Amino acid sequence: MAHDFPELKNDLLLRALRGEDVDRPPVWMMRQAGRYLPQYMKLRKKYSFFERVETPELACEITIQPIDELEPDAAIIFSDILTVPQALGIDVDLVKGKGPVLDNPIRTVDDAFSILAEDVPGKLEHVMDAITLTRKELNGRVPLIGFAGAPWTLFCYMVQGQGSKNFAKAKQFLWQEPDAAQHVLKELTKATIEYLKAQIDAGAQVVQIFDSWAGLLSPDDFNKYALPHLMEICSAIKEVPVILFAKGAWYALSRLAFKSGASALSVDWTMSPDYSRSATRSDITLQGNYDPTKLLGSRKQIEKDVRRMIDRFGRHKYIANLGHGILPNVPVDNARVFIDTVKSYAEYNARD
Amino acid sequence: MAHDFPELKNDLLLRALRGEDVDRPPVWMMRQAGRYLPQYMKLRKKYSFFERVETPELACEITIQPIDELEPDAAIIFSDILTVPQALGIDVDLVKGKGPVLDNPIRTVDDAFSILAEDVPGKLEHVMDAITLTRKELNGRVPLIGFAGAPWTLFCYMVQGQGSKNFAKAKQFLWQEPDAAQHVLKELTKATIEYLKAQIDAGAQVVQIFDSWAGLLSPDDFNKYALPHLMEICSAIKEVPVILFAKGAWYALSRLAFKSGASALSVDWTMSPDYSRSATRSDITLQGNYDPTKLLGSRKQIEKDVRRMIDRFGRHKYIANLGHGILPNVPVDNARVFIDTVKSYAEYNARD
Repeated sequence: MAHDFPELKNDLLLRALRGEDVDRPPVWMMRQAGRYLPQYMKLRKKYSFFERVETPELACEITIQPIDELEPDAAIIFSDILTVPQALGIDVDLVKGKGPVLDNPIRTVDDAFSILAEDVPGKLEHVMDAITLTRKELNGRVPLIGFAGAPWTLFCYMVQGQGSKNFAKAKQFLWQEPDAAQHVLKELTKATIEYLKAQIDAGAQVVQIFDSWAGLLSPDDFNKYALPHLMEICSAIKEVPVILFAKGAWYALSRLAFKSGASALSVDWTMSPDYSRSATRSDITLQGNYDPTKLLGSRKQIEKDVRRMIDRFGRHKYIANLGHGILPNVPVDNARVFIDTVKSYAEYNARD
Repeated sequence: MAHDFPELKNDLLLRALRGEDVDRPPVWMMRQAGRYLPQYMKLRKKYSFFERVETPELACEITIQPIDELEPDAAIIFSDILTVPQALGIDVDLVKGKGPVLDNPIRTVDDAFSILAEDVPGKLEHVMDAITLTRKELNGRVPLIGFAGAPWTLFCYMVQGQGSKNFAKAKQFLWQEPDAAQHVLKELTKATIEYLKAQIDAGAQVVQIFDSWAGLLSPDDFNKYALPHLMEICSAIKEVPVILFAKGAWYALSRLAFKSGASALSVDWTMSPDYSRSATRSDITLQGNYDPTKLLGSRKQIEKDVRRMIDRFGRHKYIANLGHGILPNVPVDNARVFIDTVKSYAEYNARD
């Protein structure tokens, strides 16, 4: 499993994750390998979503596209959080205008107990191959981030069967069959740990966990159905730093900082820098939190906003990022201003 | 305009809104006149949504259905927040599986500046007629609540043209054309004040303002684009108590308590009783916050949850409610347990 990878030239992300002093924060964008890039759209016309995800050469090419185009301080492997449900036997289709549709969602207690985390990494070798290939092709330019969906978020899709405003079916199952639900959540936790460890073995230098639907839970329910699994995953991953993104779970930020064992917390734009720093008592690296719709505004305003965002979070223990994935209709030059403004922060600051 | 309405027999809601001591909190449910009721579904088969909203006799009948069936402590007039955009010249259709679709959304600066709040109440006489009729038909059983959408939430629909996960088009317009957006928000504020005053003249004894999409804004943007308009509306309505529901705007709860001038704040289930009371320093009546999906769970659990919810909020200065509208697939008997558990709280408590 030991690979001989090229030496890392830009370790800014790793330094921010270790809490070391930096001249300016590292920057990357969630979904930076995506539809706003014309070079991505070219491949999208030729290959289906799962061809792109499951062909290591394509996933590698797509992962590196934003690195070539915008030069952020990290790459994140092009993949999907629904790879794990797929490996657990749930078929996923992408339906135009509807997003992911799961053909055989969990609808009964038997369905739930039939979910078993057996050799998930073995079924997702293509992801590991893509990571190893990308790590080599990146040639040490920036670190490579691996990722997985959090158990609660995966559970939402696996029961609901598709995206939803409130995931009412998934929550109904949770309230009606809490034991069966906890079985699924536990298997997902086990699968996620094995999957992330395999990604790390394959070359991922940081991993991020996406709990995109954490904010649908009340604080009590988050403590029951999301937090224990996040804690188990974070405590099992000691090899590389873990970034945890529990979108919408503002009420849990303090608890996540002190209990999750994550190296960094990613925050959305409803959590102000002041709130985020004070809830975490400035002790943990924070990532975020630019409102992605603001990349549709003027470049002058983006520049102003981004400087102010760094001023407020502080340049240390901070990773500049969006508060959610970049939108498909963002002009590339606006994304560039976002990245470049962070990268010129040290000079801008010295000028004052 | 002075009506001779029957005397109010159940004034529990008004007492809770005035902060008076009560044996148990009042209870009602957002969207209680809705699709979970078989008697509503019967009318829904015969009449279109806008026939139901625009025919005072039908709106009255639908408003009273849950009062007959479940006996909550308040009625809320059956209507829609999109009546105001309609009165401002934007056509609204209800498309099956898609929700409201606005035929001529705001897409340009000219579109925005053409929005003028001219005689909005005059164009919505059917709502006022429905309120007056319902107030009479209720015969003083419970108070009648009128309502309107908040300017920010109406702006979201008027620009986006339909429901959306992130209202990216509406926010894009806001960032690109803030002056035009503020013009629309100001006209909506003016229209909303006139509309609510007309509802009060017609017989509404309480009004609620729904800022359903407040949580899409960062705290700074909420302070710029939502809060000033909410404050203006609340300070203009002195005739009856105002309940303000800024869903998702947890970060603004304290500011809303001290600055909005509302009589009560409605909170969603991510804002725990402890958080909500401490952010508002226990000074304002709070309403909420049961996760509506939990009405799909067991009746025993609902009973347990509701008692605990009242224990935590405290019985005074509190209105038991959901944290968002009731879902269409809730069994009527589960809704009944929600209402009945609140109504038996005094006896249950005495038993301990």
